[in-house]
Formats: sequence, structure tokens, C-alpha cells
Amino acid sequence: MEKVTVFGAGSWGTALAYVLTLNGHDVLLWTHRADQADELNSGTNERYLPGFRLPGTLKATSDLQHAIRHSETFVIAVPSKAIREVCAEISGGMDKSALFIHVSKGIEPDTHKRISEMIREEVGTEQLKAIVVLSGPSHAEEVAKEHPTTITAASEDKEAAKRVQDLFMNQFLRVYTNTDVVGVEIGGALKNIIALAAGLTDGLGYGDNAKAALITRGLAEIARLGVKLGATPLTFSGLSGVGDLIVTCTSPHSRNWRAGNMLGKGKTVEEVEASMGMVVEGIRTTKAAYQLSQKVGVPMPITAALYSVLFEQVPVEKAAEGLMDRVKKDEMEDMIDLL
Amino acid sequence: MEKVTVFGAGSWGTALAYVLTLNGHDVLLWTHRADQADELNSGTNERYLPGFRLPGTLKATSDLQHAIRHSETFVIAVPSKAIREVCAEISGGMDKSALFIHVSKGIEPDTHKRISEMIREEVGTEQLKAIVVLSGPSHAEEVAKEHPTTITAASEDKEAAKRVQDLFMNQFLRVYTNTDVVGVEIGGALKNIIALAAGLTDGLGYGDNAKAALITRGLAEIARLGVKLGATPLTFSGLSGVGDLIVTCTSPHSRNWRAGNMLGKGKTVEEVEASMGMVVEGIRTTKAAYQLSQKVGVPMPITAALYSVLFEQVPVEKAAEGLMDRVKKDEMEDMIDLL
Repeated sequence: MEKVTVFGAGSWGTALAYVLTLNGHDVLLWTHRADQADELNSGTNERYLPGFRLPGTLKATSDLQHAIRHSETFVIAVPSKAIREVCAEISGGMDKSALFIHVSKGIEPDTHKRISEMIREEVGTEQLKAIVVLSGPSHAEEVAKEHPTTITAASEDKEAAKRVQDLFMNQFLRVYTNTDVVGVEIGGALKNIIALAAGLTDGLGYGDNAKAALITRGLAEIARLGVKLGATPLTFSGLSGVGDLIVTCTSPHSRNWRAGNMLGKGKTVEEVEASMGMVVEGIRTTKAAYQLSQKVGVPMPITAALYSVLFEQVPVEKAAEGLMDRVKKDEMEDMIDLL
Repeated sequence: MEKVTVFGAGSWGTALAYVLTLNGHDVLLWTHRADQADELNSGTNERYLPGFRLPGTLKATSDLQHAIRHSETFVIAVPSKAIREVCAEISGGMDKSALFIHVSKGIEPDTHKRISEMIREEVGTEQLKAIVVLSGPSHAEEVAKEHPTTITAASEDKEAAKRVQDLFMNQFLRVYTNTDVVGVEIGGALKNIIALAAGLTDGLGYGDNAKAALITRGLAEIARLGVKLGATPLTFSGLSGVGDLIVTCTSPHSRNWRAGNMLGKGKTVEEVEASMGMVVEGIRTTKAAYQLSQKVGVPMPITAALYSVLFEQVPVEKAAEGLMDRVKKDEMEDMIDLL
């Protein structure tokens, strides 16, 4: 039995807190909203996991100091745009070091930093035992229902990745270790772009053949960028690459797919953002990845087409047509950088 | 304008004959059943493409000699188990050589031959201009509706692959060339195994996380076998690998997925085969791939689990549990053979 603090009570933070509690750990779930902490302590999280009953042994708080003091193992489960603020606040309240496990997916616009890089900038070196990223094909709703799920725990620190594997592993949740933090973070972040694009072509009625082609070429462009940034190509063939991409692009649970679907059906970006009521990570990530691809000189046609829709008012039909029509004579041309 | 004969008037043969006709070619569609030829000539194929209207310029015949004499470009679109018989008959009637384009997916049980190897054994070298395999994420129903679709034309003979690309390419069908015949044929055949397994876990109610994990690990075992047989690893990251795998495992059009789904819901193998009314390629391919994996010493846990259900009366729950429970500590272990 270990003490663990989970920061962020969205669907994924809550589902992971549930898993850790089931595994016998003493878990405190932090949310910045006092009313949500009260609701969690009464056993539900209706907004993010409707219909789900939390066990009485899982406690929640909105008191950040209390949350920090609870343990030396922190699961950071806040949206990517809240990472810096939350980690800075945590860092300011820490009086001993902790293991940081993050489960957020995104890249920061303008700085192009990955989540673990942002955490390192906000938390002092002496406060960090290690950083582990947990990623893979894992809809929170299904994990909460104890459906079989597999995820990757990646860290440059192999022992830390193994500790995280031990913390989360159980009958329905299988955890695999990996040392390729760059690949796991890039795969996790950029799949949201392809999910938006897949939702968009689905919304336009293009069909499953088109979607499979889009996912395949999307995987190639994610891997191309990742490899350029130092990732291992094989990571993109694994759970946090193709696995997460598939589940995000084909499952109705995926909010990025849903957002893209609305765009394909004619809604504006503003209307989509307003109606989702949750963060659509893919929109932010499209901007960051587009900038990054320009900076490092990696062609990312799907990301560029989506960027033109989201930020340059290009009509969806035009962007989508351009995407499917791009003529390429030999299949390997697209992937040759990965060899 | 070229003359082309399509042998086999199932959904895919009919859809491809339609594409070639649209592209301005003079197409003759052969079926072994005279009544089906009559129906095709009256403009429909209700059994295989319900609701679809064929253009009047597309002609059909059940006269094999007539079909052979029509052209020097043959599209072989019969189920894998009819490949030898049909190709032997065609060969017996040929008086000049022809380009063979095959679109079948499977491996022969016991001999473990790929489709192009079977064709080479049935058709004389002097009768073969070249063999090209056409494969990729392409449900016939969607191609018939002119939805955007991408496929791969693979041949050791690059010029032949380019000719096939020119024949089929149009506004909605994009054709990419590839020289890795082994990889494209193995990817196309073995995805049907994973689709059966995905249908099975879906039938058991395992959910999308489990399915994504299954597809990811399925891709790894397909690539492992393919590479052992001489394929290029990157082919499995392309349209005929991950692309075709995704569409077959996630689309309700897929008959292998539907067959697996029935198994997961408790039907016996015999009941499933009887109720499908069409060939379930994945069942035959599971046997062939299982034998082949044993012969060449490549571990294929998903194939083996499915084999135990299909041919050794192991209950689906037991096989599926074993599949998800297989503990693996490091993600890369599974893929290390691909490096």
C-alpha cells in the first residue's frame, strides 16, 4: 500500500484514482473546485464520469497543501494548458521531493514544449524524483468499468517506470514500460490532431476507407516529426502510437473526434468549442504541431490542412479535398524518413 | 482505353469492374454462374452489392473462353480457395500472355503459399506478363459509392505496378505503388485474423481500449511473421498493413469482424459459417498462419488463441482472457524482431 495524490478530477484523473484505490493504495484526489471535492467525497463525478460510483475509501480535497502533504507520488491529470500553473503551485508548496506521473496529452503552442519539459521547468530538480508519462489507448469511461486496457509507462528512469507499472497494474489494466519519453509524448499529443481530422472527414461523409487512409498517413506524419525530435520509430507502432491513434479516431467516446465531426458537419470552430464544454486538446495541439513542423522542416500535410481550417478560415471541404487528393506515386516516399 | 477482364463478381470484383468502366476501359466481368451474368447484364448485383446500379457499358459473361479472349489484362477477384481452380482453367484457355492483377486475400493452409505464389504455380511462366497485387483499406460498398479510397499496387515488376496504378487511379480511388509483394500479401491476408479476434472481443463486450490493444499487438505479430518471410517492415505501417487492419477491425462492413462478433456472442464456428452466406477468409487464414508461425518459429499469440477457438474447441472466454492476460514487462520486447 502506497500513498498517492492525483491532481485533477476530470474523467481520466478520476478513473486512475479509482484504479489506484482498487489496487489498495491510499489515494487523495485533488480538484481546484471545493464543490467538486464535496461531490467526489459523496461518491460521484457526474460531469466527467456520469453514472459512476466512487468507492468510499477514495477521498477528495480542494486544499492544495493537504494534497501535496498526502504523498510523495503525484499523478498530474490536468489539461495540458493548466500544467504549468498547477505544477508551479505544487512546487511552491512542496517540502520534500516526489515522483511525478503525468497523463496529459499536448504540446505547448509557441514554445513547442512537451508535457514533461513543462513540468521540469516548473518543478525544481531537487523536488523531482523522476517523471513518468502514462499513455495509451484508454478511454476513462472503459477503465472505470474495468474493461481490459493496456497502457505504456515511459521514463528515462527505468526504475521509476517499473514503480508506476507496479502501482497501476491489475487484472484489467496492463502496464508496459518504455524508455522513449519523446515518442510516447509526441504520439499521445499528436493523435488528437488526426482524431480531429478523422472526425472531420467522417462528418463530411467520406467513409471508412478514407478514414483508414487518413489514420495511416497520420501515423506516418506523427512518426516523421517524432523521429526528427529524437523518438524511436518503433514507439509509434506501439500502444501509445498506433494503439492510441486507433481508439481516438474510431471511438465515439473521443471528444477530439466529436469536435472534428461537428466541424465536418458545418459548425464553426467557435461553435464547436462552446458546445463541447470540455477542453479539446487537439485544437491547441494542431497549432503547436504546425508551428513545430515548420520550424524543424518536417512535412505534415494533415496537420497543415487542419491548421488551415482551425486558424485560417479555410472551408472544411476545401481542406479535406486537398488532403485526399495529394498525389503520391510510391507508398514508401511518405515513410522513407523512418528507415 | 484498354480492354480488361475481371474474373469473379463478388462485391470487390464488381466494384473494381465498375471503377475500370468509369475510367473509360472496356471491361468484361466473368462469373461462373450464368444466372448471375444475366443479372449483371441487367444492371444489378443484389447479393453482393445490394442497391447498386451498374452502368450499361459494363458487360458480364459466364463464358470463360469469351472472358479470356476479351483482353490481356486479367483482374482475379475470386475467394482465395478458388484461386488455383480458376487460374488453372484460365491458363488452359489462354493463347497469349496476360498481366494478372489479383485482389484476393489469404494464405493456403498446408502449403502456406501466398496468392501470387499459387497463381505462379497454376499459370505458365510464358503466359504471365507480370503479377500485381492490389490491396488496402477498401470496402467494396464504399468504392461503389465513389467514396475517397486509397490502395496499394505491389509488384516486383515496377512498370507493371505503374500500369495498374494508371488503370485504376481516378478522382476517388488513389493508387500507390510498392515493390514489397510479400509484405502486401501477408498484411492483406493476416488482417482478417485480427479482424476475427477484434469481432470476438467486441462480442464479449471488452470495449474499445481492448480492441485498440489487440489491433496494435496484432499488427506487431503480422509484421513479425512478414519480416521473417522477407517483407519490408515499413510496409506494415502503410495502407496494406495498418490501414487495411484498421478498416477491417473497426468497420461494420467487415465480414470477418462480423463472424468474430458472432463467435464472441456464443455462436459455434459451424453456426457462424452457415449464417454468413459468404466466405470468411479469416478462418482459413488462421489455420494457415498458425501452421506457418509454428514452422518458421515466430510467436503469434493472437493467431494461436484464435486457432484454439476455431479448431480446438477452446471456449472463447478462455482464449480471450489468455490473450489479454499475457504479461509482458517491456513494450519493445514484442517488436524487437522488427528493428
